[in-house]
Amino acid sequence: MTDNHAAPLAATLDALRAVLGDDAVRVGEQIGERAMTDWTRHDPTRPAALLLPRSTEEVSRALAICHAAHQPVVPQGGMTGLAGGAIARATDIALSLERLSGVEEIDAASATLTVRAGTTLQTAQEAAAEAGFELALDLGARGSCQIGGNLATNAGGNRVIQSGTARDQVLGLEVVLANGDVLSSLGKMVKNNTGYDLKHWFIGSEGTLGVITRAVLRLQPPRAARHTALVALGGYEAAVNLLRRLSARFGNDIGAFEIMWPDFYDFGVKLTGARSPFANAYPLYALIEHASFDAGDDGERFSAALTEALDAQAIRDAVIAQSVADVRALWAIRECTAEFPVRLDPVNFDVSLPIGEIGAFVDRCRAALDRRWPGNESYFFGHIGDSNLHVTVDGRSIPGVDHHAVYAFVYDMLGPLNGSVSAEHGIGLLKREFLPISRSPAELAAMAAIKHALDPHGILNPGKLF
Amino acid sequence: MTDNHAAPLAATLDALRAVLGDDAVRVGEQIGERAMTDWTRHDPTRPAALLLPRSTEEVSRALAICHAAHQPVVPQGGMTGLAGGAIARATDIALSLERLSGVEEIDAASATLTVRAGTTLQTAQEAAAEAGFELALDLGARGSCQIGGNLATNAGGNRVIQSGTARDQVLGLEVVLANGDVLSSLGKMVKNNTGYDLKHWFIGSEGTLGVITRAVLRLQPPRAARHTALVALGGYEAAVNLLRRLSARFGNDIGAFEIMWPDFYDFGVKLTGARSPFANAYPLYALIEHASFDAGDDGERFSAALTEALDAQAIRDAVIAQSVADVRALWAIRECTAEFPVRLDPVNFDVSLPIGEIGAFVDRCRAALDRRWPGNESYFFGHIGDSNLHVTVDGRSIPGVDHHAVYAFVYDMLGPLNGSVSAEHGIGLLKREFLPISRSPAELAAMAAIKHALDPHGILNPGKLF
Repeated sequence: MTDNHAAPLAATLDALRAVLGDDAVRVGEQIGERAMTDWTRHDPTRPAALLLPRSTEEVSRALAICHAAHQPVVPQGGMTGLAGGAIARATDIALSLERLSGVEEIDAASATLTVRAGTTLQTAQEAAAEAGFELALDLGARGSCQIGGNLATNAGGNRVIQSGTARDQVLGLEVVLANGDVLSSLGKMVKNNTGYDLKHWFIGSEGTLGVITRAVLRLQPPRAARHTALVALGGYEAAVNLLRRLSARFGNDIGAFEIMWPDFYDFGVKLTGARSPFANAYPLYALIEHASFDAGDDGERFSAALTEALDAQAIRDAVIAQSVADVRALWAIRECTAEFPVRLDPVNFDVSLPIGEIGAFVDRCRAALDRRWPGNESYFFGHIGDSNLHVTVDGRSIPGVDHHAVYAFVYDMLGPLNGSVSAEHGIGLLKREFLPISRSPAELAAMAAIKHALDPHGILNPGKLF
Repeated sequence: MTDNHAAPLAATLDALRAVLGDDAVRVGEQIGERAMTDWTRHDPTRPAALLLPRSTEEVSRALAICHAAHQPVVPQGGMTGLAGGAIARATDIALSLERLSGVEEIDAASATLTVRAGTTLQTAQEAAAEAGFELALDLGARGSCQIGGNLATNAGGNRVIQSGTARDQVLGLEVVLANGDVLSSLGKMVKNNTGYDLKHWFIGSEGTLGVITRAVLRLQPPRAARHTALVALGGYEAAVNLLRRLSARFGNDIGAFEIMWPDFYDFGVKLTGARSPFANAYPLYALIEHASFDAGDDGERFSAALTEALDAQAIRDAVIAQSVADVRALWAIRECTAEFPVRLDPVNFDVSLPIGEIGAFVDRCRAALDRRWPGNESYFFGHIGDSNLHVTVDGRSIPGVDHHAVYAFVYDMLGPLNGSVSAEHGIGLLKREFLPISRSPAELAAMAAIKHALDPHGILNPGKLF
């Protein structure tokens, strides 16, 4: 934070108060815990000030002041991130979008929802549902996370295999640039080839190129029938073959394809106090959801496809949920991850790899972890249809080992495979040093050139990504 | 073309010959017609030279030379564009990707195809089909257009309602920047949040930010059953309601939803020498395709949905194709546009608008055209599920009127509606002056800043877009 051009903080705050009002410029004890860290609980820090603008116009005027003053600004949404991307330093000004909230319009003809950045995902989902539509984006933090943050981080979540990531839901976007310029590209059109598609520059840029203030999101008709199965598999290749077999039959009516290796599955069964529905143990398990637009779909075609797979020895066993209670019991195993922060000292990985290479990577990674830290307890699971693998190493099983050493060890194995150190959580603060594993010097240089072009004083979310 | 830093052309060509070989640097009569204009036949011009690099490395070395020499370069693919985006000036060097062709890999586990930019779309489609997959991108120019051009222009085409535009098919991209730097982001991962998603910068940028050399495209399982219907409607609102009704039931198994206003429909029937399958005339017609992954889908659900719509008076009549000949006859009406260049002196529009506003726009546009040029013959049709309207005005019906005046007249009506002057064809040379109708000064300034950051000497496709 040594910037020779920086104006004194007090003068900047005075200018901000003149524009936003005293109530919208908070300092010291007026700043609550919420603005100090995200769901990682990493390094809670009180920012120099917290801004609470009420409109795009106020965001624009606030940024213009900070730009002129060379004052760093950290955009904040629901603070549910897992990469430290919204944590401000003590010398930064945090800019919360929470007052810029609400659904502005649902256009049934276009099947679009226009929403302000500070709206929680759940509020947007509910508005869509009330209008007879579904917002495809869904993640565990839905009640707290905000649309602006979802788009700034290109959130993934539960339905990527079916409907893509946050990016894929966006038709229009309004963004305020570092200098206060407003780029309002709030079109509802599916097709629009008029120059660079600016929304894509900001989605996933983690608040380093602009502050998202509004968006036009696509809506889908709701899926009317859902069927859930737990499948036992002979190995990873069988899992990929089953994915392709079911996709060929059902397209993107396959709404979940969650793979659990036995370490994870057994731990999940134990944690939930449930019993495995299978009498035997198997090399791999898949939790699969079939979700159809057809309300009259009774799941017969889905179970017939699994029966065929069983007859063809493509799978080893399958259980189909017969009731809501069954569905919950099966999902409880997969969702035991909610207990991880309490029951483990988790070192979490969110990596991606070509789908065909995930199985071999898991085997190699487990063997390498066992050699390096004998007795480690590690859990492997993932959304393989999205090429996304999660690994959780329990820090309690390797006492005295710094988490950082575990991160470095696993990420190093990804490099040669062109894997990604972040499938869905982003880079933020916490993975910054590992970014060069997934991005070449030429890619990093291009990113830096664009950052400089759009934010020449480097005021937006400094220290993140770069 | 007055650039004080520009090196003499002869020296630049010598340097290029040293790197690419004499055979790959053509001048004068060695340059065929193909490199001189696109499918618009606009202003055929022989470029100063035509480069035919064989590899990404050669593209990189050629661009580094042109960058150092401040020599403008126009990337060329299959020359099937409709906006003049690949037409070089006499002082430009054209860079054809045609020798950089071929499918490099199909990865069945990832359901991806890795392909060089100069490969024709049809070759890529056939390779996908041979491996049991489908490449969702499809357009009339498939036999000539090249993947690099498809991506550089974010081509739309026949299946956007189902699978999105060219952009939506891309997982990885390799691009050579103006200075010769190679950005190789050829990942096969669906999820990859490691900094800016560079591929989106270049897709749709019409060759102004980099030269696309390779891509990783997603593949889908093939649709196994297709059913086609022609539906008569009471008006535009009924068309939107039918679209929503069918989407709710069939999701993106609705593979085409082509709207034809009576002017277009009657002309299409006349041109094809067919008879309308309906005894009466109606205010609007929709050609609809239902395409299912389920080979056993006999179309019963699709026809039941249309029968229900008829019973509910949501539609006025419907004909369902019973044979391949029926399907062809119905599509022949819509595809009479292939005859337009021969039968008309067409002034073509490719605009987009929010879906709910297209009907009123058509009424207003037709009335305005009639007031301005009484007796004009104009045809309205479009992919309304994609928010895309096409209008063709027959220049023969308004003798002495310059096409440009017609363009300006119609585009001016779009501005207040936040419509787009180019839904799928791009801006190129021909729509450049109309770009400010669809983009604000702030958006244009941001585009210019990005252009300058990635191509500081402005050598890539100058005069296009900007």
